Amino acid sequence: MKKNERLEHDLLGDRMVPADAYYGVHTLRALENFPITGTPISIYPEQVRALAEIKMAAARANNELGFLDQNKADAIVKACEEVIAGKLHDQFVIDVIQGGAGTSTNMNANEVIANRALEIMGFEKGEYSKLHPNEDVNMSQSTNDVYPTALRLSTYVSLMGLIESMDYLREAFEAKAEDFKHVLKMGRTQLQDAVPMTLGQEFSTYAVMLGEDIERVREASRLLCEINLGATAIGTGITTHPQYAERVRHHLARISSIPLITAPNLIEATQDCGSFVQLSGVLKRVAVKLSKVCNDLRLLSSGPRAGLGEINLPARQAGSSIMPGKVNPVIPEVVNQIAFEVIGNDMTVTMAAEAGQLQLNAFEPIIAHSLGKSITHLSRGCRVLADLCVSGITANEERLRKSVADSIGVVTALNPYIGYAHATEVAQEALISGRGVSELVLEKGLLSAEDLAEILRPEVLTRPCVPLAKQKVANTAR
Amino acid sequence: MKKNERLEHDLLGDRMVPADAYYGVHTLRALENFPITGTPISIYPEQVRALAEIKMAAARANNELGFLDQNKADAIVKACEEVIAGKLHDQFVIDVIQGGAGTSTNMNANEVIANRALEIMGFEKGEYSKLHPNEDVNMSQSTNDVYPTALRLSTYVSLMGLIESMDYLREAFEAKAEDFKHVLKMGRTQLQDAVPMTLGQEFSTYAVMLGEDIERVREASRLLCEINLGATAIGTGITTHPQYAERVRHHLARISSIPLITAPNLIEATQDCGSFVQLSGVLKRVAVKLSKVCNDLRLLSSGPRAGLGEINLPARQAGSSIMPGKVNPVIPEVVNQIAFEVIGNDMTVTMAAEAGQLQLNAFEPIIAHSLGKSITHLSRGCRVLADLCVSGITANEERLRKSVADSIGVVTALNPYIGYAHATEVAQEALISGRGVSELVLEKGLLSAEDLAEILRPEVLTRPCVPLAKQKVANTAR
Amino acid sequence: MKKNERLEHDLLGDRMVPADAYYGVHTLRALENFPITGTPISIYPEQVRALAEIKMAAARANNELGFLDQNKADAIVKACEEVIAGKLHDQFVIDVIQGGAGTSTNMNANEVIANRALEIMGFEKGEYSKLHPNEDVNMSQSTNDVYPTALRLSTYVSLMGLIESMDYLREAFEAKAEDFKHVLKMGRTQLQDAVPMTLGQEFSTYAVMLGEDIERVREASRLLCEINLGATAIGTGITTHPQYAERVRHHLARISSIPLITAPNLIEATQDCGSFVQLSGVLKRVAVKLSKVCNDLRLLSSGPRAGLGEINLPARQAGSSIMPGKVNPVIPEVVNQIAFEVIGNDMTVTMAAEAGQLQLNAFEPIIAHSLGKSITHLSRGCRVLADLCVSGITANEERLRKSVADSIGVVTALNPYIGYAHATEVAQEALISGRGVSELVLEKGLLSAEDLAEILRPEVLTRPCVPLAKQKVANTAR
Amino acid sequence: MKKNERLEHDLLGDRMVPADAYYGVHTLRALENFPITGTPISIYPEQVRALAEIKMAAARANNELGFLDQNKADAIVKACEEVIAGKLHDQFVIDVIQGGAGTSTNMNANEVIANRALEIMGFEKGEYSKLHPNEDVNMSQSTNDVYPTALRLSTYVSLMGLIESMDYLREAFEAKAEDFKHVLKMGRTQLQDAVPMTLGQEFSTYAVMLGEDIERVREASRLLCEINLGATAIGTGITTHPQYAERVRHHLARISSIPLITAPNLIEATQDCGSFVQLSGVLKRVAVKLSKVCNDLRLLSSGPRAGLGEINLPARQAGSSIMPGKVNPVIPEVVNQIAFEVIGNDMTVTMAAEAGQLQLNAFEPIIAHSLGKSITHLSRGCRVLADLCVSGITANEERLRKSVADSIGVVTALNPYIGYAHATEVAQEALISGRGVSELVLEKGLLSAEDLAEILRPEVLTRPCVPLAKQKVANTAR
Repeated sequence: MKKNERLEHDLLGDRMVPADAYYGVHTLRALENFPITGTPISIYPEQVRALAEIKMAAARANNELGFLDQNKADAIVKACEEVIAGKLHDQFVIDVIQGGAGTSTNMNANEVIANRALEIMGFEKGEYSKLHPNEDVNMSQSTNDVYPTALRLSTYVSLMGLIESMDYLREAFEAKAEDFKHVLKMGRTQLQDAVPMTLGQEFSTYAVMLGEDIERVREASRLLCEINLGATAIGTGITTHPQYAERVRHHLARISSIPLITAPNLIEATQDCGSFVQLSGVLKRVAVKLSKVCNDLRLLSSGPRAGLGEINLPARQAGSSIMPGKVNPVIPEVVNQIAFEVIGNDMTVTMAAEAGQLQLNAFEPIIAHSLGKSITHLSRGCRVLADLCVSGITANEERLRKSVADSIGVVTALNPYIGYAHATEVAQEALISGRGVSELVLEKGLLSAEDLAEILRPEVLTRPCVPLAKQKVANTAR
Repeated sequence: MKKNERLEHDLLGDRMVPADAYYGVHTLRALENFPITGTPISIYPEQVRALAEIKMAAARANNELGFLDQNKADAIVKACEEVIAGKLHDQFVIDVIQGGAGTSTNMNANEVIANRALEIMGFEKGEYSKLHPNEDVNMSQSTNDVYPTALRLSTYVSLMGLIESMDYLREAFEAKAEDFKHVLKMGRTQLQDAVPMTLGQEFSTYAVMLGEDIERVREASRLLCEINLGATAIGTGITTHPQYAERVRHHLARISSIPLITAPNLIEATQDCGSFVQLSGVLKRVAVKLSKVCNDLRLLSSGPRAGLGEINLPARQAGSSIMPGKVNPVIPEVVNQIAFEVIGNDMTVTMAAEAGQLQLNAFEPIIAHSLGKSITHLSRGCRVLADLCVSGITANEERLRKSVADSIGVVTALNPYIGYAHATEVAQEALISGRGVSELVLEKGLLSAEDLAEILRPEVLTRPCVPLAKQKVANTAR
Repeated sequence: MKKNERLEHDLLGDRMVPADAYYGVHTLRALENFPITGTPISIYPEQVRALAEIKMAAARANNELGFLDQNKADAIVKACEEVIAGKLHDQFVIDVIQGGAGTSTNMNANEVIANRALEIMGFEKGEYSKLHPNEDVNMSQSTNDVYPTALRLSTYVSLMGLIESMDYLREAFEAKAEDFKHVLKMGRTQLQDAVPMTLGQEFSTYAVMLGEDIERVREASRLLCEINLGATAIGTGITTHPQYAERVRHHLARISSIPLITAPNLIEATQDCGSFVQLSGVLKRVAVKLSKVCNDLRLLSSGPRAGLGEINLPARQAGSSIMPGKVNPVIPEVVNQIAFEVIGNDMTVTMAAEAGQLQLNAFEPIIAHSLGKSITHLSRGCRVLADLCVSGITANEERLRKSVADSIGVVTALNPYIGYAHATEVAQEALISGRGVSELVLEKGLLSAEDLAEILRPEVLTRPCVPLAKQKVANTAR
Repeated sequence: MKKNERLEHDLLGDRMVPADAYYGVHTLRALENFPITGTPISIYPEQVRALAEIKMAAARANNELGFLDQNKADAIVKACEEVIAGKLHDQFVIDVIQGGAGTSTNMNANEVIANRALEIMGFEKGEYSKLHPNEDVNMSQSTNDVYPTALRLSTYVSLMGLIESMDYLREAFEAKAEDFKHVLKMGRTQLQDAVPMTLGQEFSTYAVMLGEDIERVREASRLLCEINLGATAIGTGITTHPQYAERVRHHLARISSIPLITAPNLIEATQDCGSFVQLSGVLKRVAVKLSKVCNDLRLLSSGPRAGLGEINLPARQAGSSIMPGKVNPVIPEVVNQIAFEVIGNDMTVTMAAEAGQLQLNAFEPIIAHSLGKSITHLSRGCRVLADLCVSGITANEERLRKSVADSIGVVTALNPYIGYAHATEVAQEALISGRGVSELVLEKGLLSAEDLAEILRPEVLTRPCVPLAKQKVANTAR
């Protein structure tokens, strides 16, 4: 045995572990087995913290129930506190893509906490006869309840961050809606000129949309509060005391400040990935709508001369290595790409969830990684979009106003007065001749100049409103 | 003009329409434009009914507000009643895959209802000067509020049917859970023998899972109750009276018996497909879990001799054209395929939703068709699975009981007494030697025969329970 | 027994079958087991024909090898000819979504052909002791080689039709590319004005793209020519004569006129869905690119006044029930939706293929249905797009020409002469001041009027070209 | 200005850059704009090398054509050599998810190479008047031809590595097929016992499948050899000499040792992502089939006592934190998860490709990242699966042999002699009574003991073969 190594043992035999490593033989095996992405689980610090919170709660419950003595419990709790404080994250080294249903992640946590607790108790790392990773740190637990619970806790915490970022972006859109509330423009359906609206109305929809999405994310997050601690191997609770599940839930809720409840059927809860699929679907919804908003921003700012040119996104960087002066909508573009990634991640989650068999889903690690990426990147995308794009958007008001004045679409407002059939004729003649709608209506004597002006007032055009002239007609018609 | 034709006119010019057709020129053009699937929209009768309910509600609201005279309103209402009763469904002929954001579907409804109303008023079909499809039947409306609202209503109704079917299947699993509640078997994680459970516990998870999914479907259905009638073209409500939106909502809620509310921001609601994406994600969740259940049923019934052979699915048909006597799990297999289809449909919905631009999503028809297929097929799949498979499942109790007796997995129950490390040694020796766990434990003197028997009692193995012996040990250890 | 019924028997017992039905008890059971979509397999006539071609080839091979007597063989062949001619398609009634790996479809074919052959031989339907669906019609076959082979043949035939449709659309784009070859316009990257090109160049890319896609479809179709007839149940060829596989391939190649080869490893070929996944991926590629083209067409034709307005799509129908005179790009829109459906279908195929287990994939029916829809709809979409849209597109030449004259993007052409840094300054000044690039370049004395005119000639701008002036500079620089 | 900084300038103004950074102001802006994943593009070293190879080839071509003087060309080439050798990879710092169509990646390359070349020429970093990132390093280029070309080159190189890994795994399966070629077992269809085969046959299919997939990957890789260098901004080749495209291709082919060709239509090639979609579809195919194989391995090794237990996977780590002695199939499980990820990545690629607009696809960076992950992880997955799992698999021969002896499925082999109907009766009786097929056949006098023994010989059962007895019967029957 070299000086900087210690000997550990598992069912496959003996192995040397680096002497200064807090992890042990199980972690070492997993490191060798899963050289896939090179990215360790510590990339998701909320997940590492959640593992430690669970181990702490379990130690307390086991101690209260008389299965874990006070010394051991105290040492475990103290080690967990250090992990929660971020001190040993570099010891959580397993690859984010790993076989074994999260067993290696749980083993990694057991080993790190056991070895740190051993030190706290005054022993050497590896003296497992004094405090054992599986018998003590993992007491009354199984990967199959610890890992999904850790995933729920860490995802819940990440979602709270996402909601904040979404709300931040929502406010950015709301501010712009206020800025642009008097800017008249043509609305479009199917990319064809439709009827007038204000640019403020257009931007307010983005704020409303984000508000609704926040509600959906919040709703999905509540499903994550239902945990299966106490299930152990398959949900039957084998090796646990009847009071354990409630006690560990109680401690964990306090430690994490999350309103946790224990699933009513632990066998179902242990094999079920429904809440992750649900959440992934909601994240996909968020992505779909963010992508749609970015598509709109890119379209409305197209130009500068041969595009719609309705708004200007703030310039963030030179847009081309060859075309001088070109500036591109790089911020919406990066958010579009995040959205595409999230939609792909949802497919991965779907495949993984469907592949669960009998009492367990072995593929939760890729679910964890997929959700982790989606939440993190969406959150950053919302911030970037708010700060580097939306807050600096300006409008080309003159151009917008002119597009309404020149439009054929205002003819829709005349429908109630001259009828769809007459209005269609006017529209067609306007299109072919290049002339204005008002001009033609007056020429044909369909409406008086006064009535026409009243009907085409901006305030009338952009909200439900039947101007006086109409009501006269309507009343007469009855 | 031939005898069996009538002349109609639109912005493209004149066209002959079959004299007995209730639809008109707009529908005719769309028939020629969209020869894609050959499947008409009437395949979804709820959608046709919803269109008629909307037209009826609009006629009433317009009449009350003084824009539509009583005669016309009465005729429109009567025509709508006939459509709702199913009398004119064969006139809804547009292809389920259609361009134009649903305009053709709305035009189809306007024309059929106008022509039937004309007859009711004593006129000929096509005498649009007496009652006009667009000016009267479509008054205060646009495709862009009518079509999404119709889609929401019809989807809501279909979902109520799906929930019933899911509940029916849930009950079938619950009945089996009761039947099998005393049948001991080995639980499995990652397809490897784990620890004992009952077959009743296994089946109860399927019932619980369906119960949870029903909750999610119900939740998603509530989002559909928010409609955008009154939005007209882009949500600004152009051409509508300020009281119209509330009046039409009121009538429609009464007619449809659905608790409708008007979206707070109609511009957002008109372009938004969020609730469809959300629902599609939930249907995908249902599909994922149904597929997992069917995978389990197929696995547990594998055999008859070289498989797990734990349960028997009822024989439904000869399973092979070449292998005599072979019977296959065809019912779970068809449900798996429905699930795969639903997951694919979700992708279609996602693409279509993301492709919306500015004030409208032009691709709602494919969203409607995708959701329609998913809901219909899932509903039928649940019924078929309940009636033709689950309700007839039997258990091979003897084989199951023996698998527990022979298992190594029961060693887990000894963890609290002999420790993980010792238990690992026993398990390894059992595996290599082919001997039994109990035999080895007794031979090694790790536990007394009496304690061992107590620990391995079925009631103890399958739920949280620390038999007496353990508590003594635990108390001592403190 | 009622007069209009006959008695049949299978392993589940006796059942009455309608006396005039050519199908038998196996088909009847499947009808009851799979009430999912209501769409029968005969919706894909190529598939029915392929089944009959296989049964005919097998009868000939079995006859030659001495296993099927001449009378029976002749009757089977004659019955198959009738099916191929389309006479009994209404007897192929199984639902397109079915459990059982295609067994019901194969049984349906066996029964229809047996009963028709019995009539040809002068017997009654159902007299299976004279000629048996399984023993004679299905001789040396199993669903597991017949069904995948039928699927390959029918898909191959459908693909030839798709290729024709794609080529038809390719030609439509090519014709437009020729029409527009002198129309100068601004090219765009990231929706921002880039550098000049011709509208002909823009349209030619669509033709080239389709040409490349045709190559990929053709490539994928070749993989379908590898069949597994002779594999029987699992690929070992159990119950077949060693010469059977080659003989049946020979006959089938002649009957179908497809260059079939027998897979080198029949066990692998029997469980493998690789070529379907590959094809589905290629169809998705076609869909992705068609969708992109339709997006472009909708964008370029946006307007008529507040959009890009570069081209005009032919009007196909009134675009709105409320907005008079509005015309929408309904044809590209319907093709977009087909594309979204195809992408969803690819996901279904992926899920189904992944779910194969051991010696068979039980989920080929949903693969068949998904591919069937994708190919059919894409083919119709190409025709519709060519005939109802592309062939009638016109250009707004004046507007396009002006956009180049007014553009800042032409400054890129000056790069080699004045450098990227100077060019950037000119571009920025043009943008802020609203002035023209040429004007500024001359004002700053960066180039002579003569050189500038030479550099900005349309022929120079739209292809690799270094006008004289540059070469002088370049030569000097060396 | 601080000592450790230098001043740079772009169209947005002045910025300080770290003095020792080889990258410049454009890279700095992009770093601030895209704080998304934290993963720099240098995670794909092939991509960095490809960029340098392109810059080197361009410098040579520009020099030959007289546009770049010898000193500059030499310095650029030398700097590129250093990048290719791996010396400056840490300077390629842009996030893998970035807006701007790859412009930032190209700018990053231009700046690093320019600054290193400046040093080589004896100047300071940042003295761009001596050698300019855009005017010299990027001469005759645009992001829009450089970036896709770099992506093609680097992907091609990665694919060669993937092919090697797949072949390595193929050989591992082939070796096992040889090991197991005499091990008789029951084949299964739809998880139900079918007919006998050898375990060698079963494993050989996995080798064959990989061989076919390698062919498809190779085919897809050939599409990547078509590059668009010379296209510049949109494919028109603006700013390039007519001979440039061919010269740069010639040099790049030599430098990279890849058989490159220039796309016939550069405008199409510049906007087209078809070959990436195609490749992604092929990678999905590989993933689908690898996943299926891993599902099989996990199923066949299920147990150890209550599963199929046909094969044993080598133990790689303790499988449970609570269940002593449990060993799980962690290696196939990790490969399953890689497959799910690849399938998700394909969806991301699909979305990104569909979102291209007009002359460019702005979303290639997420395509690059998605393909990069898929190829890397699949490659590592194949190696891990071969080394840590397949090569150590052993068979439970006795159990397998017994399953054939006890099976009902062998009755299929009797079809040609006793007929499907009789065979069905025997099978049913065997199933109900639990008795053996041979026993029943003899008891019923359906075949002589001698003939039966002949028909059921393993060599006969597992390949196309009609034993003597049958041929007699057949000959007689004629």
